[in-house]
Amino acid sequence: MVKLEFHIDLSYTVLDATCDFIFNMHAAQTAHQHIVEENLQINQPLITVLQTHRESNNRLLRLQAQSGLLTISYSATVLVDHRLTPPDQIRELPIAQLPTSVLPYLNASRYCQSDRLQKFALFEFGHLKPGYARVAEICNWVQNRVSFRPQASNVNTSAMDTLVDRVGVCRDFAHLMITLCRALSIPARFVSGIDYGADPAFGAPDFHAYVEVYLQDGWYIFDPSGLAVPMGFMRLGTGRDAADVAFATMFGAVQATMPMVQISAHEDAAQQIIMPHHTGDAVSTDPGTYEI
Amino acid sequence: MVKLEFHIDLSYTVLDATCDFIFNMHAAQTAHQHIVEENLQINQPLITVLQTHRESNNRLLRLQAQSGLLTISYSATVLVDHRLTPPDQIRELPIAQLPTSVLPYLNASRYCQSDRLQKFALFEFGHLKPGYARVAEICNWVQNRVSFRPQASNVNTSAMDTLVDRVGVCRDFAHLMITLCRALSIPARFVSGIDYGADPAFGAPDFHAYVEVYLQDGWYIFDPSGLAVPMGFMRLGTGRDAADVAFATMFGAVQATMPMVQISAHEDAAQQIIMPHHTGDAVSTDPGTYEI
Amino acid sequence: MVKLEFHIDLSYTVLDATCDFIFNMHAAQTAHQHIVEENLQINQPLITVLQTHRESNNRLLRLQAQSGLLTISYSATVLVDHRLTPPDQIRELPIAQLPTSVLPYLNASRYCQSDRLQKFALFEFGHLKPGYARVAEICNWVQNRVSFRPQASNVNTSAMDTLVDRVGVCRDFAHLMITLCRALSIPARFVSGIDYGADPAFGAPDFHAYVEVYLQDGWYIFDPSGLAVPMGFMRLGTGRDAADVAFATMFGAVQATMPMVQISAHEDAAQQIIMPHHTGDAVSTDPGTYEI
Amino acid sequence: MVKLEFHIDLSYTVLDATCDFIFNMHAAQTAHQHIVEENLQINQPLITVLQTHRESNNRLLRLQAQSGLLTISYSATVLVDHRLTPPDQIRELPIAQLPTSVLPYLNASRYCQSDRLQKFALFEFGHLKPGYARVAEICNWVQNRVSFRPQASNVNTSAMDTLVDRVGVCRDFAHLMITLCRALSIPARFVSGIDYGADPAFGAPDFHAYVEVYLQDGWYIFDPSGLAVPMGFMRLGTGRDAADVAFATMFGAVQATMPMVQISAHEDAAQQIIMPHHTGDAVSTDPGTYEI
Repeated sequence: MVKLEFHIDLSYTVLDATCDFIFNMHAAQTAHQHIVEENLQINQPLITVLQTHRESNNRLLRLQAQSGLLTISYSATVLVDHRLTPPDQIRELPIAQLPTSVLPYLNASRYCQSDRLQKFALFEFGHLKPGYARVAEICNWVQNRVSFRPQASNVNTSAMDTLVDRVGVCRDFAHLMITLCRALSIPARFVSGIDYGADPAFGAPDFHAYVEVYLQDGWYIFDPSGLAVPMGFMRLGTGRDAADVAFATMFGAVQATMPMVQISAHEDAAQQIIMPHHTGDAVSTDPGTYEI
Repeated sequence: MVKLEFHIDLSYTVLDATCDFIFNMHAAQTAHQHIVEENLQINQPLITVLQTHRESNNRLLRLQAQSGLLTISYSATVLVDHRLTPPDQIRELPIAQLPTSVLPYLNASRYCQSDRLQKFALFEFGHLKPGYARVAEICNWVQNRVSFRPQASNVNTSAMDTLVDRVGVCRDFAHLMITLCRALSIPARFVSGIDYGADPAFGAPDFHAYVEVYLQDGWYIFDPSGLAVPMGFMRLGTGRDAADVAFATMFGAVQATMPMVQISAHEDAAQQIIMPHHTGDAVSTDPGTYEI
Repeated sequence: MVKLEFHIDLSYTVLDATCDFIFNMHAAQTAHQHIVEENLQINQPLITVLQTHRESNNRLLRLQAQSGLLTISYSATVLVDHRLTPPDQIRELPIAQLPTSVLPYLNASRYCQSDRLQKFALFEFGHLKPGYARVAEICNWVQNRVSFRPQASNVNTSAMDTLVDRVGVCRDFAHLMITLCRALSIPARFVSGIDYGADPAFGAPDFHAYVEVYLQDGWYIFDPSGLAVPMGFMRLGTGRDAADVAFATMFGAVQATMPMVQISAHEDAAQQIIMPHHTGDAVSTDPGTYEI
Repeated sequence: MVKLEFHIDLSYTVLDATCDFIFNMHAAQTAHQHIVEENLQINQPLITVLQTHRESNNRLLRLQAQSGLLTISYSATVLVDHRLTPPDQIRELPIAQLPTSVLPYLNASRYCQSDRLQKFALFEFGHLKPGYARVAEICNWVQNRVSFRPQASNVNTSAMDTLVDRVGVCRDFAHLMITLCRALSIPARFVSGIDYGADPAFGAPDFHAYVEVYLQDGWYIFDPSGLAVPMGFMRLGTGRDAADVAFATMFGAVQATMPMVQISAHEDAAQQIIMPHHTGDAVSTDPGTYEI
């Protein structure tokens, strides 16, 4: 079990009379991620609605802000209970055994045009033995070929671009890996979160994007950016790709400042709470059971 | 109420030892579309699984076929109960009033890159009064600028392509209209179906693709191809775009022949069953209630 | 006649042992643009080659710099002799009358995929009477639909992107206008230069990109960015699109600082030298004669 | 020396009152390709203009046809004098030694977006020793990864598409190889021609597209499609990519039938004329001298 405490500070200037916002910045509640406590502060006196989306399980904060400054502070402490499995015990599932709820994650999506990469993926990975090791090989392939460079991509950048340009940020690595998996008929999805323990090459703590692949009995975590520690991931939102899990969506004219993100991990031997660390085991925090 | 009877014949040659298929060819069951009877015949003796996907309500037929010929015949009779509303009574909903279940249909998807068209859509439609009439104007805009031409597009063609190339088939018209709506923050989705009463310019009866836009109190039907009769639509699948509602997905080497599709409508004055016809009213067959 | 004096300061840090450069920063010499004087200073003692490319007439400065700082200062004074023509006297040429040398400017190029925009261009401009006024209408169309925003595009941005995204800098405006002209079988090309008299909305003086269209008897200047004064343009390079006229191409690892550009105009009534000003006449500085 | 005799039959129905055509179907005349005789027949009595484009050396046949049937037959006999060189003697030229006339073939073009593939090309080929062998390796790489499949691509398909989709026809193979070469700062261009001796997998004799790369002292021929015999190539047109060498460009409404192409080779020991055959030597038919 890992205990993560994080804090997000957002600041906007609303330029219109009012502006609707939808945030996906609340820690997800899942069978493996328990919220110990959370706190939300908003400078404007306004009605907020917090909803959990039925399909994605994402928690959406919806509000309509008034003109002027809007600041939002959210902090939470979560316990993440990782299931660790030796990689060689994890199979890919044949199509016939995939749960129906998982099938949409075989489909192409905005940033993951897996329909176009079938020949490509077969050429590169078709000869490998199906299983966790093959997916790990895809993860490594992406990591080795794409360079991490802030500002090298933008909100329109898709996996096709990253495959060609070979440069991007964590969301681009994630999109390319997801696309290659789907092109091989392996369900894969996008997770937004905050990560503890990342390589300082990432810069200051920030939102992170990583990948979950459905194998054998659940969703397994992969980090194609290669700079983070999967056991240090705190889940915010889950979706087909980045289009589904923007941490903030604004419907109006707004000036935004860079979000401030902080995260820390806390050990507590008495409660069997350990620090996030690199592991040779496969890491899963979602068996997919809430979807049945 | 409209009564539609249709028949689909599919024929494949499976080239591998086995091949998994997922079909979305069963008539959808909704509050407004009742299945009177249906019949499925498959030439191979095999186990089929028919599942209704929780989120989309699509009915998926899953099976693993053996090498050789696979033929599937499906026929059904459905009653479609249209809600007809004068267009001038239908508002666009402000963001704050959109049901959570509808929010994913604001997101960009594989064939509908609405993130890129915001300036474009504002320039063309931003000055129009929000409401059904504005959406109808978007529908007309697409219809007037894009030419219907079979084979002019392919499975990779997206709304960006159609916006530029200005030629396509019904799915391309639908993708472009959906993209423009989402770019204006109006939820829109893709429906696959079979249509009765289409202009013979479409050729023989075939699968059709059309659009639903969420306004006021439900999903309203639009046909940007302009050649069909919305009251003659029978719903198969609903999704973000064509990536979600392929009528057949094969996971292996297969030769396919063109599907054969037939549809007829049946009048029955005694039961208040009428023939599909063009109407000046807005047509809806999904208030979205099953999603709550 | 207009007299323009300009100055370019470039500064690089060469990170490899040596690095080849090709610059297209010398004022072009044409029948209508006379170089009164020019001056080049380079901080490193090295061999430079100055060549005029036979086809494009562009003047290329080639050199191999050593590791470390490389600074280049170039200044020139040019006289530009504009041919001004009332727009209503300028016809589009039928294909059969186009000089052979002009035909490549009908072809699609890297940033100008005119092969894809034929239906689009016909829909928007096909009904207009051929001639200068139609081309001016294309220029206005681009100007009205695309917003000028620095950093909104990058070196990969093509006319297709600008058509969709509707935002960019002067080179993007130029690419879109060129593409629309070629799609209508009107030869169009890209010019890089420096402009005097631009709207301060452009920021400090900088390199500029504009369009030349072949009509009746020569290449006519258009400025789809709408913020500059065509009579204040000083020509550096001419090509199919921006791929042909980069002001600097480096073949190695280099850090570059922003180029510093200055330009001034000088009146001299005695010599009939006037200040650049907006005019209702069509402006041409290249009858295309050097190409015969 | 090789002697090739070929014949092209074209047939169109002009639907407008008149229609301009530009053909690039005449055998090129170069220092290494001599036209022994040629013959042109057109069914309509009309004025034709045959021009050699100064830059490309391509021979353009221009004409304006009347409404109705237009048939054109062109046949020619050419002698091609190949320069054969052992590959290990052929160096890549450093940038500083490239002739100015060759520099445009480093630029990105419509179908060859080499600006985007620099990281990609460096990753795959940057570690290889520069020279003919590295270019041959690029040629093999393309051949091994892309499948030949008629109709799998269309007139909009670019090297980016082929890199991703991994399927195409000879022009797509050529575009991808050209793009990879340019991304490594190796000048490369597109040649259209007719080929004798191709693998029947290509089907009947047809127009062919191949690549020339500028090395050491001239343009060397490569055939990334891998199915043809470079010594059997007869050159029609040379350009940056397919946009420059369409064998027929129509400016109006036309119905076209498939072109009929025939080619044969003729041995004549007395005159040292041999049959085209596969060779381990590098093949060149253009030292680039006409460009000085």
